[in-house]
This record gives sequence, C-alpha cells and structure tokens, in this order.
Amino acid sequence: MTEDIQEAGTAPSSGRFEAERSAEIVAASLAGTTDERLREILTSLVRHTHEFVKEVGLTVEEWAAGIRFLTETGQKCDDTRQEFILLSDVLGVSMLVDAVNHPADGPVTESTVEGPFHMVDSPPRALGDTIDEAGLSGEPCLVTGRVTDTDGRPVAGAGIDVWQADAEGFYDVQRPGEVPERNLRGLFTADEDGRFWFRTIVPRYYPVPVDGPVGTLLKATGRHSYRAAHIHVEVSAPGVRTLTTHIFVDDSPYLDSDTVFGVKESLIRAFAPVDDPVRAAEHGLPNPFRHVDFPVVVRRDTQP
Amino acid sequence: MTEDIQEAGTAPSSGRFEAERSAEIVAASLAGTTDERLREILTSLVRHTHEFVKEVGLTVEEWAAGIRFLTETGQKCDDTRQEFILLSDVLGVSMLVDAVNHPADGPVTESTVEGPFHMVDSPPRALGDTIDEAGLSGEPCLVTGRVTDTDGRPVAGAGIDVWQADAEGFYDVQRPGEVPERNLRGLFTADEDGRFWFRTIVPRYYPVPVDGPVGTLLKATGRHSYRAAHIHVEVSAPGVRTLTTHIFVDDSPYLDSDTVFGVKESLIRAFAPVDDPVRAAEHGLPNPFRHVDFPVVVRRDTQP
Repeated sequence: MTEDIQEAGTAPSSGRFEAERSAEIVAASLAGTTDERLREILTSLVRHTHEFVKEVGLTVEEWAAGIRFLTETGQKCDDTRQEFILLSDVLGVSMLVDAVNHPADGPVTESTVEGPFHMVDSPPRALGDTIDEAGLSGEPCLVTGRVTDTDGRPVAGAGIDVWQADAEGFYDVQRPGEVPERNLRGLFTADEDGRFWFRTIVPRYYPVPVDGPVGTLLKATGRHSYRAAHIHVEVSAPGVRTLTTHIFVDDSPYLDSDTVFGVKESLIRAFAPVDDPVRAAEHGLPNPFRHVDFPVVVRRDTQP
Repeated sequence: MTEDIQEAGTAPSSGRFEAERSAEIVAASLAGTTDERLREILTSLVRHTHEFVKEVGLTVEEWAAGIRFLTETGQKCDDTRQEFILLSDVLGVSMLVDAVNHPADGPVTESTVEGPFHMVDSPPRALGDTIDEAGLSGEPCLVTGRVTDTDGRPVAGAGIDVWQADAEGFYDVQRPGEVPERNLRGLFTADEDGRFWFRTIVPRYYPVPVDGPVGTLLKATGRHSYRAAHIHVEVSAPGVRTLTTHIFVDDSPYLDSDTVFGVKESLIRAFAPVDDPVRAAEHGLPNPFRHVDFPVVVRRDTQP
C-alpha cells in the first residue's frame, strides 16, 4: 500500500481527480508528510472516509447535513462541555480507543472510559472517610477492595482516585453552589496490604447532556441518553500501569444499553444490603447499609 | 448485514462492550432509527470509523489530538468561513461527493466542486458585457461558448452563471471596499442558438484560507494551499440538469496538484492569445487579448 501511494505521488497526473482512484489520489498528496505516523493515520482515515461516501452513495444534501452537524458539534464545545468527546462516546469510539490501548490482559482488572467528569482533582482523604459531604443524601454504602499485582502480591500505598454521581444522578460540577465542591470525590492511599475502604452513597444512573447535536442524534436514532450507575476508580502506583475503570451497580437500569457502551461484565458488582448494627457502627454508617467489594489487579511494569 | 444487526439489536447483552464486535454493538443500538436512510448512513459511518481506529491502533493521545482538531475546525466557522467544507475539500471528499452524484455521463460536460465563493447572487448582464468592473486590472479575455443537449440541439435561453478570482487571486467578497460589489460575477442568458459570450480578465490561481486548522493540516502534510486558476460556470435551464463546473486555465500552475482535487482533464482549456485589432474592437477589448471557448453539453430531464 505504502509503495503504491509513493508511486502515485510522483505520477504526473496525481492531482487530477478520478472517482475510481479518489482515495489513492488524496493519499498521494500526503507523500510529503514528514511525520510517518501522521501520514499512516491520514491515509487510513481518507480511505475509510471515501469508502463510506461511495458505499452509501452520499447525496449532496446529506453531505451538507453532515457538515452542519460537525460544525454545530464544534460550536457546542466550551470550557465545561466537550461535544466531540460525547459524540465519540455515543458512537462507541471512546470505548474502542480504550480497548485498543488497554486490551484484555489476563487477570488484570478491565478498563473503561474515563468520562468527562474527572475535571477537578479529588481531595486526599483518609481510609474509611466518607466522600459524601452533602450528608448522606442517598443510600449509605461501604466500598472495600484490595490492590494486588498479577502474582497476587499487594500493591502497598497504591493511589485510589474515586469520583461518582450522587443519588439524583449529578456530579458536583453540575450543581455548583448546591453541594460542597469536590463532593463525592476522594483520593485514598491503600494500606501496606494494598487494602482500601471508604464510605459513600450508592450512585444513580444519569443522562449525558442532550441539549446539543449529540442529543439530537440520540433522539433521531431512538436511543435513550442514560449511563448505568457506576463509581469511577483510577488506580495508580509507581511501577504499575495506571488503571481507569468503573464499578457498576448490579441492580442499575441500562447495564445492557449504557449510552456510551461503557459496561463490561467483569466490572458489575453486587452492592449487597447489610443489616449489621455492630459493623455499621464500626464504620460510622447507619444501619442497614450496602457494601460492595472491588478487588483490583494491576500489572507491574516490566521495565521500571 | 441489516438482518445481522437487527438480531444483535434484540440480543440481551448488545449494550455491553466487546472490542471484537464494537461496530456491530453500536450498529445494534441504532435499531430504533425510524429514518431507514439515516440508519444506513450511520451504520456505515460507525463501521468505517471503528475499522479506522483498529487499523491504525489509534492511541489515546492521537484520539485526543483528533478531538481537538475537530473542535477547532468547528469553532473556526462563522458566517463567511466554513472550515469543515474546506476540510472536506482538501481531503477530496467534496469532489468525491460531486462524482457520486454526477457520474461521468457520455458527452455531458463534467462537473466539479461549487466551492465556497458562490455566496452572493451574480448580477444579470447582457451578452458581450464585461464582468470586470474594476477596470481591466488583468489580462483582457473573451469567453465564448454554446450550450447544447446530448443530441447537439441548442438550449436556447440557458442561464450561464459565472464567477471568478481576479488577477491577484481574490474574489470580490475577499476585498470588501476595495473592488465593486459583485465584481467578476455575471448571470448571462444564452441566445436562441444556445450561444453565450462575455468579457473578463484571466483569473489567477489562489490559496485557500490557511489561518485555521486546515492550514495547519496542509502544512503538516507538506502540501501547498493553491487552487489552479479557473472560472466557475453554472448552467441551468428548464428541463435540463443543472451543471456546476469550472473552466481551468491551461497554463496555470497547480493543474496537477489543485489542493481541492478539482481539476478534470476535460475542463482544461487554452486561453489562446489573439492579436487581431478588428476582432478586439468588435468586442470592445484592447488588443491583444486572450480567448477561451467552452462548449457546454447538458442532459435534458427524461421526465419533465
């Protein structure tokens, strides 16, 4: 392929258009790209774009509608809204990019999308603290887990960054002034045995923003806009590959139709009801409460 | 394909992500699209987008760079600038859409892109008039032609809409206040024999706008930003298919590397030097002048 393109690039009539060879002709025009990787990416992008246009026989009106959609998507973006990432999310592209970069790796905990709400740093908190500063506005919940490597050895002192929506489906940044800043976020440090635990509330499923072009697309395709309920977890430590994932709530709606395709079977966990006044008191929780355990397996770098 | 998707759409775990089946899973989510054509287009778009990501092994950083590029492209657009159309142009997509919608059709004159400068109506002018109201600031030129159908019969009274850049490579709308409004534009009406003629100046090659993301892309790929010199021609009449095309100047640079891939061999014409004081005087042109003849063949609608 690459050699064909180079030949076409030096052919005298490479710049004159022929529908049958359209992608080749455009690819030939990229022969002067000094960044070889950029050229590889653009060549593939051009070929797939041209194949798409030919395959569906895109009309001029449909092309113009596409131009309008892309323009409106760009113009919907601002400091707190990224409509192109949302478009990537609802077309499954973000999950695919995650999968390409973090393929299934034996016992290692599976990854999923980071999402758009990791925009502020989580406040450092002590093991056992609550991340709910708004005062238990939802079902009280204990989260426990242990970070180990692929040989089962604990990762002492691993960083556990968590963030989540509240019991009404909103993140703190969506309710400025209504809830404390950095509510339902926390940065914990695992103990010597890799263990972590903290208190929170059970998160609710929630809709992605639908007041832009992506919302229009979801509506036109008869799709709902909801994400299944989840707690975001990012685990990092020196010498291990950072893991970005979710804990999904097993009785949430939308586990089978998460609008960003973020659900993986292995990430769904029971948030089990616990009726145990002694244990509740130990953790400073009301009784009854719910409990989810989320063991995390990370891979150590082979070359430090 | 359609049936496979419908089956997947009703499968219980369609919304859970699997990298191997990513495009299928997203396509299944489109099962509720009431507009069958929209579903066909989106299904193909998703499949090609996912194949592209897998084929190049897009990294998270490259994905993020793509998101930034698309966002900036959308945000560069305003009432007089359409950066997404420009992107479509320089990737050969606009020419491909034109080709898909106006395939080669025997003796019919070939089409090419309309371009972004047909934004104001051309003023009606009498046959033989000049479209250069700025006072012959370039090489004087006579344009002649005849509109016929595929059987060689004249198309009496055909509308001939022309617009072009000046001898410095600018359209009127790019020099507001400097040149008369609607300079180098004209709407002519062919005579009973389908003939048309008018005076102008020889257009110059010119660059597309490079102060936006598309300019950055052209630079990164080692491409120049120039279009070969041309006169835009749009021919219409009741009962015939409208033709949008260019007359390319045969001694222009960039005929082999037009940055929007607009050149077709059949549209290149000699702008022949003429040294003939009598003929010059007949047309109200200085001597010597240049002359291009552009016969136009259009197709009559079979169903009026």
